[in-house]
Amino acid sequence: KMSKEQGYDVITYLADIGQDEDFEVARKKAEKLGAKKVYIEDLRKEFVQDFIWPAVQANAVYEDRYLLGTSIARPCIARRQVEIARKEGAEYISHGATGKGNDQIRFELSCYALYPEVKVIAPWRIPEFYNRFKGRIDLMEFAKKYDIPVPVTPKAPWSMDANLMHISYESGILENPKSHAPADLYLMTKSPKDSPDTSDELELEFQSGVPVKVTNTKDNTSKSSPLEIYSYLNEIGKHGVGRIDIVENRFIGMKSRGIYETPGGTILLSAHLDIETFTMDKEVRRIKQGLSVRFSELVYNGFWYSPECDYVRHCIAKSQENVDGKVQLSVFKGQVYILGRESPKSLYNEDLVSP
Amino acid sequence: KMSKEQGYDVITYLADIGQDEDFEVARKKAEKLGAKKVYIEDLRKEFVQDFIWPAVQANAVYEDRYLLGTSIARPCIARRQVEIARKEGAEYISHGATGKGNDQIRFELSCYALYPEVKVIAPWRIPEFYNRFKGRIDLMEFAKKYDIPVPVTPKAPWSMDANLMHISYESGILENPKSHAPADLYLMTKSPKDSPDTSDELELEFQSGVPVKVTNTKDNTSKSSPLEIYSYLNEIGKHGVGRIDIVENRFIGMKSRGIYETPGGTILLSAHLDIETFTMDKEVRRIKQGLSVRFSELVYNGFWYSPECDYVRHCIAKSQENVDGKVQLSVFKGQVYILGRESPKSLYNEDLVSP
Amino acid sequence: KMSKEQGYDVITYLADIGQDEDFEVARKKAEKLGAKKVYIEDLRKEFVQDFIWPAVQANAVYEDRYLLGTSIARPCIARRQVEIARKEGAEYISHGATGKGNDQIRFELSCYALYPEVKVIAPWRIPEFYNRFKGRIDLMEFAKKYDIPVPVTPKAPWSMDANLMHISYESGILENPKSHAPADLYLMTKSPKDSPDTSDELELEFQSGVPVKVTNTKDNTSKSSPLEIYSYLNEIGKHGVGRIDIVENRFIGMKSRGIYETPGGTILLSAHLDIETFTMDKEVRRIKQGLSVRFSELVYNGFWYSPECDYVRHCIAKSQENVDGKVQLSVFKGQVYILGRESPKSLYNEDLVSP
Amino acid sequence: KMSKEQGYDVITYLADIGQDEDFEVARKKAEKLGAKKVYIEDLRKEFVQDFIWPAVQANAVYEDRYLLGTSIARPCIARRQVEIARKEGAEYISHGATGKGNDQIRFELSCYALYPEVKVIAPWRIPEFYNRFKGRIDLMEFAKKYDIPVPVTPKAPWSMDANLMHISYESGILENPKSHAPADLYLMTKSPKDSPDTSDELELEFQSGVPVKVTNTKDNTSKSSPLEIYSYLNEIGKHGVGRIDIVENRFIGMKSRGIYETPGGTILLSAHLDIETFTMDKEVRRIKQGLSVRFSELVYNGFWYSPECDYVRHCIAKSQENVDGKVQLSVFKGQVYILGRESPKSLYNEDLVSP
Repeated sequence: KMSKEQGYDVITYLADIGQDEDFEVARKKAEKLGAKKVYIEDLRKEFVQDFIWPAVQANAVYEDRYLLGTSIARPCIARRQVEIARKEGAEYISHGATGKGNDQIRFELSCYALYPEVKVIAPWRIPEFYNRFKGRIDLMEFAKKYDIPVPVTPKAPWSMDANLMHISYESGILENPKSHAPADLYLMTKSPKDSPDTSDELELEFQSGVPVKVTNTKDNTSKSSPLEIYSYLNEIGKHGVGRIDIVENRFIGMKSRGIYETPGGTILLSAHLDIETFTMDKEVRRIKQGLSVRFSELVYNGFWYSPECDYVRHCIAKSQENVDGKVQLSVFKGQVYILGRESPKSLYNEDLVSP
Repeated sequence: KMSKEQGYDVITYLADIGQDEDFEVARKKAEKLGAKKVYIEDLRKEFVQDFIWPAVQANAVYEDRYLLGTSIARPCIARRQVEIARKEGAEYISHGATGKGNDQIRFELSCYALYPEVKVIAPWRIPEFYNRFKGRIDLMEFAKKYDIPVPVTPKAPWSMDANLMHISYESGILENPKSHAPADLYLMTKSPKDSPDTSDELELEFQSGVPVKVTNTKDNTSKSSPLEIYSYLNEIGKHGVGRIDIVENRFIGMKSRGIYETPGGTILLSAHLDIETFTMDKEVRRIKQGLSVRFSELVYNGFWYSPECDYVRHCIAKSQENVDGKVQLSVFKGQVYILGRESPKSLYNEDLVSP
Repeated sequence: KMSKEQGYDVITYLADIGQDEDFEVARKKAEKLGAKKVYIEDLRKEFVQDFIWPAVQANAVYEDRYLLGTSIARPCIARRQVEIARKEGAEYISHGATGKGNDQIRFELSCYALYPEVKVIAPWRIPEFYNRFKGRIDLMEFAKKYDIPVPVTPKAPWSMDANLMHISYESGILENPKSHAPADLYLMTKSPKDSPDTSDELELEFQSGVPVKVTNTKDNTSKSSPLEIYSYLNEIGKHGVGRIDIVENRFIGMKSRGIYETPGGTILLSAHLDIETFTMDKEVRRIKQGLSVRFSELVYNGFWYSPECDYVRHCIAKSQENVDGKVQLSVFKGQVYILGRESPKSLYNEDLVSP
Repeated sequence: KMSKEQGYDVITYLADIGQDEDFEVARKKAEKLGAKKVYIEDLRKEFVQDFIWPAVQANAVYEDRYLLGTSIARPCIARRQVEIARKEGAEYISHGATGKGNDQIRFELSCYALYPEVKVIAPWRIPEFYNRFKGRIDLMEFAKKYDIPVPVTPKAPWSMDANLMHISYESGILENPKSHAPADLYLMTKSPKDSPDTSDELELEFQSGVPVKVTNTKDNTSKSSPLEIYSYLNEIGKHGVGRIDIVENRFIGMKSRGIYETPGGTILLSAHLDIETFTMDKEVRRIKQGLSVRFSELVYNGFWYSPECDYVRHCIAKSQENVDGKVQLSVFKGQVYILGRESPKSLYNEDLVSP
């Protein structure tokens, strides 16, 4: 809106990466505010295949715990935004990330890597903007004046980032690292206390380190396209899987408290670790483990499109050539238990093992 | 017994590192078999302080999953055995590990590091021994002939290694990596299904990266000596915490399937990761994380007493100087949930974080 | 001068870290320009002991070739500058590094680490300054107007940084990476062609990884204080030792061509590598080698006073406890040849080696 | 000979990897001793292309100094030996390495990796052999008795390993790490004192990290096949390039003193480091540098044909895709001086650099 006040032609772009949002309402809101054009893009399939799958191959975990659900969504969103900007001949790209977090960095690094000629505008770092809107109340009043609907309500005094892979919660009452998170915070999973009293049992089949099929061995449900597999794992993960409360180190060093729920990703991490160790040479695994730590740092810091991240992704993908096989597991009350595994590429030799 | 047959004076040594065993029965058995002297040594305190605590400081995990419960017990057992051997002037040290596993290596490396003049006898690698006892049946008959009580019964067709930190299960019917473990395998934890329907909540206090106090915030139980803290965490961990089923890479490359339960250690790993990230500089953490991977490999491979493991332990301990503070967590149905944390050494700055 | 024009009280500070400079001329120049106070500080001893020695222990080399002669001088200079600023109650600290290089970063990171309350002024990044002085000619005219003597003359169309450890040459005609450096560039060493036709032979004695004595075995010259040892090695290094022409990666990614001569440092690197491998356990060496790479990157990037650099320095120093012994070497026409070594802490076992 | 005494059919195999040897004499000697068949194989081309070139891409250096001239020859020799053994249906492979060095390990690891069904016979580890030949004198007498010519003469009281890449000298009078090597030891290079008083100047052209052309810019000599390039660099290296005297850590931990001369390899290392940094992204370089350290250790330890070495070679080769360009250098009195470089893939930006 403010961009329009200043005489720019505004094209809005909204990526559907699996967040729970009413895209038609968003479209109308954008049109009402005077957007010249509104792009609403369903990126869920490419998000899974081009971004989540490489993270699964890497066992990508930042600082031993965070599965990078927000970090790997940024380059996915930025890629399409840049495509649109190029197509529309846009000279400027804007985003709404604040001036203290990682997302501004991730977003801008991606844009400049993919479209070096563009200029990124970060309203939260422009004095004209942040002096006008000193806090939430100014924003609310501006929204009210122009009749712009706003999502933040007093009910949820924290901020969220949601996509197919995870929801993160931070800021507000969560900022005090000692305060416990409220029980009703979580939107993606049930509390272990309220989750089903019987387990679900799955068989996950991998090829080259990515899942190609999931089967529920209790009811024979089966999925085999990437988006369906991932969505189904999220559904099963509602047993309370993948909730963490951590303090992490942001790119610029500052520590930040975040609460995450990553149901499908957590199941996949367990299963992939299992099939990988089963099929990969011990020493190759050690080297690849080191590359994965680097990959996770690069992705967290926003360097998905850097030469070094390309390089590391290539090396990790190479290590996955024989990571084929099936893992059986059960999911219950927040936990994932590996039950067994088999593989045509197994390096396990039963004869050798027996004493 | 066979040693005695061959004319050696035999001194037996049995370490109490927290396994569930009737030590008086063991003593009588040893005496009956003709041991000149029987040492039964309670090493539980030193096991916790000198071996488990450094592993906690390191967040020691082998191949991303195994908490090294057997690996860190070996150097503890060997240290005392060597002390006794020196005191008694023994020329030979014997052990019962088989010729295919890691333990023979761990044990022998430790002995030779601490007592280079001694000679280790590994019956399972002596032709005279392994030709006489080609399998379990020969051993059973030998035992029967000399009236030696034996622990392995048809009820548990796998082998176990138990101590204060964990129980491991492998071999026998578990050798097939596809076979699921039987539900009644576990001796240290309850199944999540059978574990309490209410959570336990703990506050764990750390100084220099090791726990100095645990308090159950529901019933105000509190423990503050190392052995008591660790034992209490094991008790709380009975909620089904710390069960894993993995295939791991042994030192000599061969893959092996193992099932482990490490209740207290799993709680401590979560809590330590939390307080460490809260109080440690980001880049120091990265460097220390790399050293910890190396530490875990060294310990797994039996090099506790090597110069490089000494060096890495020193560097890791140095990194823990400011790892002080309290972590609140809840334990429920196999899961550990971090709830909050506070520290006088916190590097977290609430003012910086807010957008 | 410009600072004074703007009404600040100016205190000037000049560090003697071994560069070839007429400090009395510098003092007069500063006084003439109106400095309220002039500090000229002889930091050569502390430069050797507190900065060069840790680099020797680390075998510090950036990108396999650069011995960090400029990088390790910055924190030495900044440390005293901050001491003076604190003593004088200065609110601002200024420096003359340009806006494209590493030195501005190194300098400012050091100042802020040691004196977080101060504000650093970098004239080359202030519009008022760089708009007024668009190039060398403007600066010359300003200097002429105020009668300020300037060092850059048409004779040397490149820039230099000199100290006890090295001289670096870059920019100007050296910027084209294909252009060969002129033969008369070097000020610290002779060309191998013009260097003596007989070798010098030295014995260097180390304790805890730092040299404690150097003896010329041909003429029995001997030095044993840090500054004398280092200065003497520089003298011997005049045989053309330590000249390199490289393209390196600056902190901010940009590549830069630099020519360096580091005579004493190059001799010490060879000798220390030798005595270290002789006295250090193989696996400790591997771990320490990894830490040294990190140390070199940190120092190059200006993080000498960071927590991670402190940590790495501590770990490296720990590794040096047994690095004692003597190395014999010869220096001739640009080369350092190790001839032999001996040590009370040697891990070399002649009996084992013979076949 | 002893093999024949024991009733085996003996096929002899001698690899020409560039050592200075009279192969016809060797053939006759083998025939005289009763070999059923004699293979003398010229492996020089494949040694350069398949073994030296990957080492150049990696900047392979063991423990910061040793260029691995012996280590990378072993897998080259073993590969052909295994081909011959397979073709001839040999059940056993024998070699002459002693029981204390690295070469037995390198050789046997290679054979078993390439031909798992074969059995390696190491005479120096067979009691029947080493009891019969307790020292050099027994061997000499055996040789005399059967009229076998032997190479070791009183003139050279040390052992040597020579190939196209280097000559190593160890044992004998060199075993004492303090003893200086005799001036007449070196066979491949001249002493810097005796080397030419004028430099040679070369331009080396690289594609994908390997040299494709060398030109002497003084006399316009030019070579462009791998073997010719490498041989020419050896010739130029006679200026005394690449002599080192080190103590290294063998695979099994023991320290060993070795003296090496690697003329061509040393020139290539300097040139490759230069063109690589010029054309490779900074962060990719850091990751690749870590992989190279691992590669060098693997090769030194004899794991050329292991899965992890394959993996690392693949990753390193990937990093070299843009390492194209020309390096100018001069060689004089034992030193290599880089003079300049240019590349179509240069990441150097002259505009950015100027202040």
